Amino acid sequence: MNAAVTEILPTVGFAASALAVTLSRAHVADIVEALNEHPPAYAADVLLDLPKARAVDVLDQPELREPGAILKALPLERAVAFIQAMSSDRVADLFRNDLSEPERHRYVAKLDHETKAALASLLAYPEHSAGAIMTTEFVSVPADWTVARTLDHVRTVERTRETVYAIYVLDPVTGGLQQAVALRRLISAEPGALVGSAAGRREPVSVSPLTDREEVARLIAKYNLLAVPVVDDNSRVLGIVTVDDVIDAMIAETTEDVHKLGGMEALGVPYREIGFFSMIQKRAGWLSVLLLGEMLTASVLQHYEGALEKAIVLTLFIPLIMSSGGNSGSQATSLIIRALALRELVPGDWWRVALRELPTGITLGAILGAIGVVRVVVWQKLGFYDYGEHWLLVAATVGAALLGIVTFGSLTGSMLPFIMTRLGFDPASASAPFVATLVDVSGLAIYFSIASLILTGTLL
Amino acid sequence: MNAAVTEILPTVGFAASALAVTLSRAHVADIVEALNEHPPAYAADVLLDLPKARAVDVLDQPELREPGAILKALPLERAVAFIQAMSSDRVADLFRNDLSEPERHRYVAKLDHETKAALASLLAYPEHSAGAIMTTEFVSVPADWTVARTLDHVRTVERTRETVYAIYVLDPVTGGLQQAVALRRLISAEPGALVGSAAGRREPVSVSPLTDREEVARLIAKYNLLAVPVVDDNSRVLGIVTVDDVIDAMIAETTEDVHKLGGMEALGVPYREIGFFSMIQKRAGWLSVLLLGEMLTASVLQHYEGALEKAIVLTLFIPLIMSSGGNSGSQATSLIIRALALRELVPGDWWRVALRELPTGITLGAILGAIGVVRVVVWQKLGFYDYGEHWLLVAATVGAALLGIVTFGSLTGSMLPFIMTRLGFDPASASAPFVATLVDVSGLAIYFSIASLILTGTLL
Repeated sequence: MNAAVTEILPTVGFAASALAVTLSRAHVADIVEALNEHPPAYAADVLLDLPKARAVDVLDQPELREPGAILKALPLERAVAFIQAMSSDRVADLFRNDLSEPERHRYVAKLDHETKAALASLLAYPEHSAGAIMTTEFVSVPADWTVARTLDHVRTVERTRETVYAIYVLDPVTGGLQQAVALRRLISAEPGALVGSAAGRREPVSVSPLTDREEVARLIAKYNLLAVPVVDDNSRVLGIVTVDDVIDAMIAETTEDVHKLGGMEALGVPYREIGFFSMIQKRAGWLSVLLLGEMLTASVLQHYEGALEKAIVLTLFIPLIMSSGGNSGSQATSLIIRALALRELVPGDWWRVALRELPTGITLGAILGAIGVVRVVVWQKLGFYDYGEHWLLVAATVGAALLGIVTFGSLTGSMLPFIMTRLGFDPASASAPFVATLVDVSGLAIYFSIASLILTGTLL
Repeated sequence: MNAAVTEILPTVGFAASALAVTLSRAHVADIVEALNEHPPAYAADVLLDLPKARAVDVLDQPELREPGAILKALPLERAVAFIQAMSSDRVADLFRNDLSEPERHRYVAKLDHETKAALASLLAYPEHSAGAIMTTEFVSVPADWTVARTLDHVRTVERTRETVYAIYVLDPVTGGLQQAVALRRLISAEPGALVGSAAGRREPVSVSPLTDREEVARLIAKYNLLAVPVVDDNSRVLGIVTVDDVIDAMIAETTEDVHKLGGMEALGVPYREIGFFSMIQKRAGWLSVLLLGEMLTASVLQHYEGALEKAIVLTLFIPLIMSSGGNSGSQATSLIIRALALRELVPGDWWRVALRELPTGITLGAILGAIGVVRVVVWQKLGFYDYGEHWLLVAATVGAALLGIVTFGSLTGSMLPFIMTRLGFDPASASAPFVATLVDVSGLAIYFSIASLILTGTLL
């Protein structure tokens, strides 16, 4: 809790009604932060004492924790009134994630027809789609309205719309989206002119309700939009996704990706709030899978046991060589994952990437190989360690193995995100630990093949 | 290039002037995408044929490549006219990153006083600070203006301001920021009332010019703002950071973080555009450092060479045990890096995290240890491999080592981002490969210590 919030909410025991007075001047985001530190029943008391518009504002924040429990602690009539006034995307979110089946029924029975219909249509869309995160509170007017009439309409509905900065101009007959007008242009347009005169000449950018939220974010970022309309096949506007919803979605996506890149399931809950057993569950799965994969290294080593017995010196370099393959793979995989996310690369570019990573891997491998050779030579010459009479061959083995494994790691790491995409997984699942495990097993095989090539007849 | 863009720009040889006609109807982001596929001289020709406002719009897009070279290809007078009309944050960016010293001089000499002053103040701020990414094109009015007068002013300046949706109300005497008014509220307010009557009761959110762009993004996301004012110590507004600049900054930060998490320097350029040698440079540095670190594993193994000679069976499990430590460390580190970025955790929380990761690590270690023991027992019993007469002790060694190393990995991985922060580095530099390398070296020591504890007198 930051200082400002501590001032707002001095103690848990503080009377909720006195508190509501203090809260009425605070930013809604700060109120949410303060309420999150208290049990739902207390938050409900505070909401009852706030002016209704303010209470609804609080409930509209996606950052508010346990909104379901807070609603449950309110008298049914008040809860229903709040739900009807909330923005439809938040209500859909609430119904999807925070309410139990009997609660959902209890509220739906009391909702007015309009809210019920909006809710039903939003709930039908898959999670993370534009349809699921859109709001139905937008401004649209027929193309035969004038600028003045449109401005009057905007003034009337302003309080009940998520944004009024983008106004959608519809075909008066079909209701299809024709143009998007920015409020900034509208206020300086000729009042008697048709509303469309204030629109740019460009086709409005729009998405389908099934468009993924990542793609919506990409379009909003690319075209610097404040909202993007979601249209059906007949170009009728179903709702809009606003820039602040997109920012929330971007933050959530990044969190998910970073968790996956770390080799685990995305937590889905803040670190400090997740329960001990949920945490174990999210982490143990991948760790166990990776361990099972890594067990193949034991099998590979068993296979080369004879070589190991004859030349124990080979053992010394196993960790070093394996990890270099993993590290170069991890670099390549995170480069490609990000380039795919930014659409700098598309799945069809895999061969271009392969052609690029091959020389890159060889060069990186040559650099690391040279360092490896120098290490063996220096240790031998300075007497830190005696690699035996064939120390030069040992150095050559280490150098060649590093060259081979770093090349292999770069290629594998760069191809894995493409393979994950093709298989229908999130490319971010091609995590550093996953790549490292893949490369470890094959890396050992490469190492021992090179060793037997170079050392047979001398050490082996 | 997507289909729409291919339509816009059919061939490289296509006459630039004919093209400009086609382009005048396209979205500016699509024009930028099309121009990016052509040499700067061609782009300059196209800009000369576009209406000035449209050309400036194109130059204002941060996605436009080589804007410096494009300006250089324009007649000096036109280039200067464009620069004066561009938004100040973009001009600052251009001067900072895309122009050589003599070019900077050539343009600055011709700029009008206002542009020159704005530029000088923006260039004085450190990169990635609010001061460096802010624009000075915002709307502010004294608090003694009426709503009607303010709206008139907005209509007049609308075309030259980056956003007019947030209007900053200043103290008429000191010029200090008093309130922020949303245009949506202003248009429905009483025309004769003071402009401040349309403001919320809340203190406006603001930042200092030295605030990091990540913090600006956090505030915009938290308070759902379209812009945040940047104020000096006397609360005078220096500029604003708009939501679209913040989105661009967020995308750039995520790219940087993902690259760092992969164990390399951030590329800073799209994957398909970076030159071969720059790519090698960005990747070879960390790979070499990690290799040098990993060389300590060879020293650790040399130390335990006696044990390895006596019990070659211990070698078989080296990769498996080492990688489990690295994987658990990588999970913990990415969890903490993300929680720190989201401010779910602050640097002072390190001990809370340690207290949490200790039992988590022990539990995860116990799970992996159990899997390890089962593996040895099953292979022994099914006759896949003979671990010798002391196979049960070998199983115990593997199990105990996994328990110890996973616990150690979770703790190290979770503490490393805190240590990086304390040392003044980006916590995202605590990459999976970095953690793995740290854990590998100490993991081997743990493994052999446990082995000598359990196996001395039997195998050792």
